[in-house]
Amino acid sequence: MTKVVATITISLDGYITGPNDGPGRGLGEGGERLHYWVFGGPWSYEEEPTGEATGADKAYLDGAMARLGAVVGGRNTYEAAEAWGGSNPWPVPFFVVTHRPEDAPAGAGFTFVNGLDEAIARAREAAGDKDVSLMGGADVIRQALRGGQVDELFITIAPVVLGGGKRLFEGFDETFRLEHLGVVQSPFATHIQYRVLR
Amino acid sequence: MTKVVATITISLDGYITGPNDGPGRGLGEGGERLHYWVFGGPWSYEEEPTGEATGADKAYLDGAMARLGAVVGGRNTYEAAEAWGGSNPWPVPFFVVTHRPEDAPAGAGFTFVNGLDEAIARAREAAGDKDVSLMGGADVIRQALRGGQVDELFITIAPVVLGGGKRLFEGFDETFRLEHLGVVQSPFATHIQYRVLR
Repeated sequence: MTKVVATITISLDGYITGPNDGPGRGLGEGGERLHYWVFGGPWSYEEEPTGEATGADKAYLDGAMARLGAVVGGRNTYEAAEAWGGSNPWPVPFFVVTHRPEDAPAGAGFTFVNGLDEAIARAREAAGDKDVSLMGGADVIRQALRGGQVDELFITIAPVVLGGGKRLFEGFDETFRLEHLGVVQSPFATHIQYRVLR
Repeated sequence: MTKVVATITISLDGYITGPNDGPGRGLGEGGERLHYWVFGGPWSYEEEPTGEATGADKAYLDGAMARLGAVVGGRNTYEAAEAWGGSNPWPVPFFVVTHRPEDAPAGAGFTFVNGLDEAIARAREAAGDKDVSLMGGADVIRQALRGGQVDELFITIAPVVLGGGKRLFEGFDETFRLEHLGVVQSPFATHIQYRVLR
């Protein structure tokens, strides 16, 4: 059965970016540290990271990829990532949540969809019996949590305190329980997998 | 060599209490969920918890107790815990950080000390070759982190989103790196152990 899995990386103090993120500044000051785990170690904004996840990080990613049927991401995340160079980097359909679906570039593998509910519905359909990955940003994940649309929450905690930035749970004032599905740790991340209880 | 180990439990959204904590209201709405792991399962403010930690939680606690040489806690935490019924419940010296050391009750096993620096110094001395546990509150832990006085940070994350309360890292605007020392998980908690890097 298809599940909607929200997946995101935070610092220990709960930020998905460092201070002063934005166009040309990546994930802000220190924000690159959040994703050391994706690239097998330290990298910087000055050079494109070339490494790959290793060990527990690779196993975690491989597990997620094996279940991946479709991806949903917010328009801001799409823009911040500069459209991943102009084409969908995932081997599955990618749905971009936006209020302006008419902005969709042609032939890039991105489907622009008006609103989160429709994006998740389209992604569920596209995913077959695999899962829908809700990759953020934080606002999209908060909206889906509020709407009861998230089945599982995969939180990766990078070993850094950033002291500022955008908080995953900023302004989120609802309470819900979680059930542990597992945890793995590498030198660069602690990956905690939760089921969302309702 | 004696280490100062800050130990605290947070929700996934980073709170050490639920909303509306205070005298007679414990750790606030839902805040009791933070400490299910301490008592081996659910409990409520209506009844005194009677259970004990089990499994991975017990092993984690036993490991911490084996290294415990002294405890430092803030005055607010001491008051919120109603002085643990009136006497030091730990088998080691307990130092209470306060601006009013003259308030110390006699013969209760608590040493009231004027300020964090002195409390940590006294605790280090009392701990011998064991560790000093800095148990909070959040303000005391933030102050010790700012002062570079924390060697290790043991964060327990309870599987709950509280949606409000007091944040561990509220107002904390410094950045520092951490090194993983390990992680264990029970049904009630994920215990992540970090070394603080400077």
